[in-house]
Amino acid sequence: MAQTPPVPAAELPPSAQAIAAVTQELAARFGNRLVTSLAVRQQHGHTLTWIPNQPPDAVVFPQSTDEVSAIVKLCAAHGVPVIAFGTGTSLEGHVNAPYGGVCIDMGQMKKVVAVHAEDLDCVVEAGVTRKELNEHLRDQGLFFPIDPGADASIGGMAATRASGTNAVRYGTMKDNVVALTAVMADGAIVKTSSRARKTSAGYDLTRLLVGSEGTLGIVTEVTLKLHGIPEAISAGVCPFPSVKAACDATIVTIQSGLPVARIELVDDVMMRGVNLHSKLGLPETTMLFVEFHGSEEGVKEQAERFGEIAAEFGGGPFDWATKAEDRSKLWQARHDAYWAARTLRPGAESVATDVCVPISRLADCVEETKRDIEALGLIAPIVGHVGDGNFHTQPMVDLANPEEVAVCQDFIDRLVKRALAMGGTCTGEHGVGQKKMKYLEAEHGAPALAVMRLLKRSLDPQNILNPGKIVTL
Amino acid sequence: MAQTPPVPAAELPPSAQAIAAVTQELAARFGNRLVTSLAVRQQHGHTLTWIPNQPPDAVVFPQSTDEVSAIVKLCAAHGVPVIAFGTGTSLEGHVNAPYGGVCIDMGQMKKVVAVHAEDLDCVVEAGVTRKELNEHLRDQGLFFPIDPGADASIGGMAATRASGTNAVRYGTMKDNVVALTAVMADGAIVKTSSRARKTSAGYDLTRLLVGSEGTLGIVTEVTLKLHGIPEAISAGVCPFPSVKAACDATIVTIQSGLPVARIELVDDVMMRGVNLHSKLGLPETTMLFVEFHGSEEGVKEQAERFGEIAAEFGGGPFDWATKAEDRSKLWQARHDAYWAARTLRPGAESVATDVCVPISRLADCVEETKRDIEALGLIAPIVGHVGDGNFHTQPMVDLANPEEVAVCQDFIDRLVKRALAMGGTCTGEHGVGQKKMKYLEAEHGAPALAVMRLLKRSLDPQNILNPGKIVTL
Repeated sequence: MAQTPPVPAAELPPSAQAIAAVTQELAARFGNRLVTSLAVRQQHGHTLTWIPNQPPDAVVFPQSTDEVSAIVKLCAAHGVPVIAFGTGTSLEGHVNAPYGGVCIDMGQMKKVVAVHAEDLDCVVEAGVTRKELNEHLRDQGLFFPIDPGADASIGGMAATRASGTNAVRYGTMKDNVVALTAVMADGAIVKTSSRARKTSAGYDLTRLLVGSEGTLGIVTEVTLKLHGIPEAISAGVCPFPSVKAACDATIVTIQSGLPVARIELVDDVMMRGVNLHSKLGLPETTMLFVEFHGSEEGVKEQAERFGEIAAEFGGGPFDWATKAEDRSKLWQARHDAYWAARTLRPGAESVATDVCVPISRLADCVEETKRDIEALGLIAPIVGHVGDGNFHTQPMVDLANPEEVAVCQDFIDRLVKRALAMGGTCTGEHGVGQKKMKYLEAEHGAPALAVMRLLKRSLDPQNILNPGKIVTL
Repeated sequence: MAQTPPVPAAELPPSAQAIAAVTQELAARFGNRLVTSLAVRQQHGHTLTWIPNQPPDAVVFPQSTDEVSAIVKLCAAHGVPVIAFGTGTSLEGHVNAPYGGVCIDMGQMKKVVAVHAEDLDCVVEAGVTRKELNEHLRDQGLFFPIDPGADASIGGMAATRASGTNAVRYGTMKDNVVALTAVMADGAIVKTSSRARKTSAGYDLTRLLVGSEGTLGIVTEVTLKLHGIPEAISAGVCPFPSVKAACDATIVTIQSGLPVARIELVDDVMMRGVNLHSKLGLPETTMLFVEFHGSEEGVKEQAERFGEIAAEFGGGPFDWATKAEDRSKLWQARHDAYWAARTLRPGAESVATDVCVPISRLADCVEETKRDIEALGLIAPIVGHVGDGNFHTQPMVDLANPEEVAVCQDFIDRLVKRALAMGGTCTGEHGVGQKKMKYLEAEHGAPALAVMRLLKRSLDPQNILNPGKIVTL
């Protein structure tokens, strides 16, 4: 853009005096809800990633939006960074504090403020986790579908635009956040929207904040869409002769309008891990885990039609069930894939990757990636939300071995570039954090990245909100 | 916000010299694609609204994104407003030119750039209309679901965050735009996203531009989600004893997970108009028009279950069919409601209104509105996208009678305030334009409106993009 606001001061850690002043004031106001012990700071200074720990200078536990606003105002007055923290399960260094500052842990903001069953929505504080919410909703026959692997906080899920296995049917956080309350860089409390299901009343501040990873505002309260627990669910597993066959069956399933709720690829390597970890005794070949939601008749019909489609591509038999115990066992095994992968190389760390391509390119992208894995001799099982074109490979790496780490970094770099070359994205659902920043220009182009920078500079001119994430200034 | 960029020059029409310079350069480059005749300028200076005509100084017909960029750069250099124009069917004064300037008519940007059937998406230039697109797609078994009343352009629909009768199942433009190409205020060409179905790679520029009504950037190309034409469709009409009964049946239908594709309320007054206009011979009572998409078995089951739900609330009989002719006649009648309304008071103009509330408040909102209509002696039929809580009443007004106009304006004002008091929005799908600006602060609160202003100032510091719409500076 031609005219941009002035660039703020360089990205430098705040002065020791500034930190001391802020910490002192916070201690006075928050008492033992302000913690500066190294252990707690380090707990808040890293995510599930291989970026070294970068602890904040202090961690504070607010209990209301007003308290968050007061904290941000204080930090703004002293030019001290503020990093919002949910459950610390993000994967790209989102909550690390490379410039120090104050970590705002939302763990004491856990109120379910309201459930509006007739409107199929609810209002929750940012610290409520997805499992806590579903526990709360169950008696009312409602559920919240978005399910990243971890039991993440709703605020964190909004901040990273999270999704999971249900996104093919229910969308991502972008689609399921109706409105947000957020504290902006100057402490202003913004409510982005009403509870109306749709609106065209001005700029979409909700979606500007969803996925902004705490760099434009701190999410303190979220209004979410809910869904009725389906009357019936059918689910099962279906082996395929190849990744290509599984992807083609997925494409036809979606094209034909079958409202599949979940359709998950698990590759042969991961199936070995799943068998080891969850003792399922399933064939160790490319597999689709599939689930349908609807009426008794509907889910039966859908499962049968999926079985027919699978057979067209050499897949099957499609072994499905509607009994809750059978389904739970299956999906627990799928959700445990992260841990299952570890059984394939005990002692090694698993590194998360996350790309998403147009579904027509998915088979190519997965197969090329598998060839790369094989050539490198990596142990890197694959799971994919194939209905969305999104997949994760999880290289198992000895982080103490710099050579292995370098090989793995190159591998991820090629993976991302492969996805971008196929018209995809460097991150389908994990977010940018620190580790994906370097790919944003290649993905979006310089003009779009310039607009992102401009937004950051305008909304956070001092660069105090989670600095060093998404865009540099 | 505490720190904001400097406020740009007052909102004043550009000087005659600036206009002359721009027009001269555009004429040199665009030849007869630059038009300054009064008739054409007036054609572009109003929408379907009662705001007086406000013509631009010139109308230009670009044929590519690069040409749009060149036009905007030229206008930016001279501080001249640019107003993007699709089909001129917006309803709140969106394309009027209160400060003059150059209207960019997208009517010569009608290429369907690509259809990716496997990915269920397509790329179109902004001037393609929804019907043109569906005509193009039909042979491939695909369709684009969003259907505002008018045959609007895709660019215009993105700019106003349009929706229509299918939104309850398929969402609005917010949900169906995958990516955009837009020309920003300095002429920069921004591509907001890849074709991947989901991404968490940075700020959501797509949804920042969707609904921004040409005030933050000019949409020149759109990547849209498509859907397979359903194997079977069932549709029908169902009378209800009251608005409340129809709304309650809608709530239960949605809560129970029936994937209704359309569920439209038509009130007794509008049914009289529909019968007069379309000769349907239907009962003149509160009516739901309903449609289901799916497999042969599925749509039959869904229609039967809806009939049972309707009966629980005293509605029915639910008269439904799966034959295309019967369905078309029905939905044509529903889509002609705008014209049907006019039969109720020949010679009068119909005024569009558009509010949306949480569905639990919909019956209250419609019933209070009907009481107001009755008390005022207005002829104001009602149609509603009740699955979304969105409804339109269409007062028939003699615009030559200032007293009538004043009464109607007060009526709309109360309607909007009623919706806001019920936790709703001042506009569900028509947008803000000029006429809804005054309600944004009441709806969003001062801090959110301040953020919207800040976004506008940052992205369009000269205020040349469709000035005088959504926010003033």
